[in-house]
Amino acid sequence: MGVSSEDAALVGDVLVASDTRGIESHGVARLEGFYVDRIRDGQVDPKATSAIVRESPTALAVDARNGLGHPVSVRTMRRTIEKARDVGMAVSTVRNSNHYGIAGYYAMLAMEADCIGISSTNAGRLAVPTGGRDLMLGTNPFAYAIPANDGDSFVLDMATTTVARGKLEIAKRLGKKLIPGWAVDVDGAMTTDPDAGLEGAVLPLGGFGTETGGHKGFGLGLLSEMLCAVLGGGVLVPDMPPLSGALNGGITSHFFAAIRIDSFRDVADFKADVSRELAAFRTSAPAPGSAGVVIAGDPEAAKSEEQLRNGVSLDPVVVASLARVAEKTGVAPVQSLKS
Amino acid sequence: MGVSSEDAALVGDVLVASDTRGIESHGVARLEGFYVDRIRDGQVDPKATSAIVRESPTALAVDARNGLGHPVSVRTMRRTIEKARDVGMAVSTVRNSNHYGIAGYYAMLAMEADCIGISSTNAGRLAVPTGGRDLMLGTNPFAYAIPANDGDSFVLDMATTTVARGKLEIAKRLGKKLIPGWAVDVDGAMTTDPDAGLEGAVLPLGGFGTETGGHKGFGLGLLSEMLCAVLGGGVLVPDMPPLSGALNGGITSHFFAAIRIDSFRDVADFKADVSRELAAFRTSAPAPGSAGVVIAGDPEAAKSEEQLRNGVSLDPVVVASLARVAEKTGVAPVQSLKS
Repeated sequence: MGVSSEDAALVGDVLVASDTRGIESHGVARLEGFYVDRIRDGQVDPKATSAIVRESPTALAVDARNGLGHPVSVRTMRRTIEKARDVGMAVSTVRNSNHYGIAGYYAMLAMEADCIGISSTNAGRLAVPTGGRDLMLGTNPFAYAIPANDGDSFVLDMATTTVARGKLEIAKRLGKKLIPGWAVDVDGAMTTDPDAGLEGAVLPLGGFGTETGGHKGFGLGLLSEMLCAVLGGGVLVPDMPPLSGALNGGITSHFFAAIRIDSFRDVADFKADVSRELAAFRTSAPAPGSAGVVIAGDPEAAKSEEQLRNGVSLDPVVVASLARVAEKTGVAPVQSLKS
Repeated sequence: MGVSSEDAALVGDVLVASDTRGIESHGVARLEGFYVDRIRDGQVDPKATSAIVRESPTALAVDARNGLGHPVSVRTMRRTIEKARDVGMAVSTVRNSNHYGIAGYYAMLAMEADCIGISSTNAGRLAVPTGGRDLMLGTNPFAYAIPANDGDSFVLDMATTTVARGKLEIAKRLGKKLIPGWAVDVDGAMTTDPDAGLEGAVLPLGGFGTETGGHKGFGLGLLSEMLCAVLGGGVLVPDMPPLSGALNGGITSHFFAAIRIDSFRDVADFKADVSRELAAFRTSAPAPGSAGVVIAGDPEAAKSEEQLRNGVSLDPVVVASLARVAEKTGVAPVQSLKS
């Protein structure tokens, strides 16, 4: 597709890490629709080289110039970690970028350097603000990665919407009602009908209205928008192209941060205390009918360990899309893929 | 009570700011029970002087030595902002502290210095983790303050629980059922009964279980615990005294951060874009039955403006508690207080 092999390898690494952690929605399943097709349609520039807009010992503002989201994000997070190692902490922004995959990937890079990692991105509009009916925000995830002993960690990687749009599609496929608080219809009224929700919008974390805290999820989504797009000088919501527009590459913004742990405490003491804290929660009494308290990142870490041993499973639909990608690009499909 | 007049003035400023912003639960209503009585009972040391544990150009780790939470927090946040002005950004922790009032107060201090402000604190255990039944986390709020043009701002100050315990008490007083997702009973089962909820626990933002995202709110609450207590080297959940224990001062930890805006963009451009972004949300179409989209911090800013003009209203119960404080301390009550 005209992408350098170095950049392609970075994209591949993020996508495969996503599948390995069991987050299939953000893995190679996206290769065709989000990356290959968008490059082919001229929405994403495969040869873009990012530019540093502003830099200081603690800060970096990058312009991705409509390149793929993953390579610029990996490089920016690496540079953020280097800065944090030099001066204790650093924050970076990336503007005019594209979909960067799972937020957690970038936050997790910081752990190898004994830093706390943070990442956020804005995303395609599919959610209403609390009290509103216009599509204004994306899933706008935040990820935080904090290392513990022996490779253990606390990795919180969460959309600031209650659910992703994919949950509505699954409910529709299964003929199920939506859970109240997931979605609104096209008028902004709460709905449990999958078709109405898919025509409408998803809701911020906390659900519909303010009674169950929907305004908090909306606040977190807007915070992501402020840190990514506004601080980074990227494309803002009021300047976004119409939702039906065909070409809308380069309108995504990201945010990264790294905090060096030994600015505050010795790393060994810190990691030991993270482990003690996690153990206290993991061994606390389960609620009736619950298998116990699950720490953010634990299911993904277990899945990753299992799949690195036994192979990464892919949905047959995804395998078929990879075959189409091979055909579109003239790359020989990998024969050993078992669907 | 033995508190220096400088420290007492700082406590007073945070409490009055809270009442002025309409957050009565964290204002002078707390003076008697949380501060005066706790000093008198020997839980809080009124003469404590905080100590710097570790310091670098970008970081500050402070030990509050069981002093009042507000003075050490104001001073630490001020120092964090100075550091951010010097080197672009800074993060601070405070351990062995006490209740510090509203998180938003400290985050908002950063705006005057053209910085983004962040604050968090852990708090007394009253919430269960998702899937659990033990009281493990407090309301553990996060506050973020981002300046816009003409004194406008985005101030998100939110507990990571769905509601504070006070909402359950209000429901009980009014004879109302709880909203599903607010609370669990003592066994960790969902309840809508106010008495059962008050005996039990409140739930993380996102409500009961994982279907509506309760695990995300739990993740945010645990993130606060990691950034405040673990990074700060404070008292961890597994080391907390029993909930029924009488003396438990000095077990609270805080987190502060300031990010200098012009590390990334010119401040005027940034503020203009924050204002444009806020305007886009405020003027977006309302959902049926809604008065429109409300930005985090807008109700508090409006209340503050109104009360600074017309006087700050206090509940008669609070006025009575201030009279008791006057009696306990031998300070003459303010006669001009109108209940």
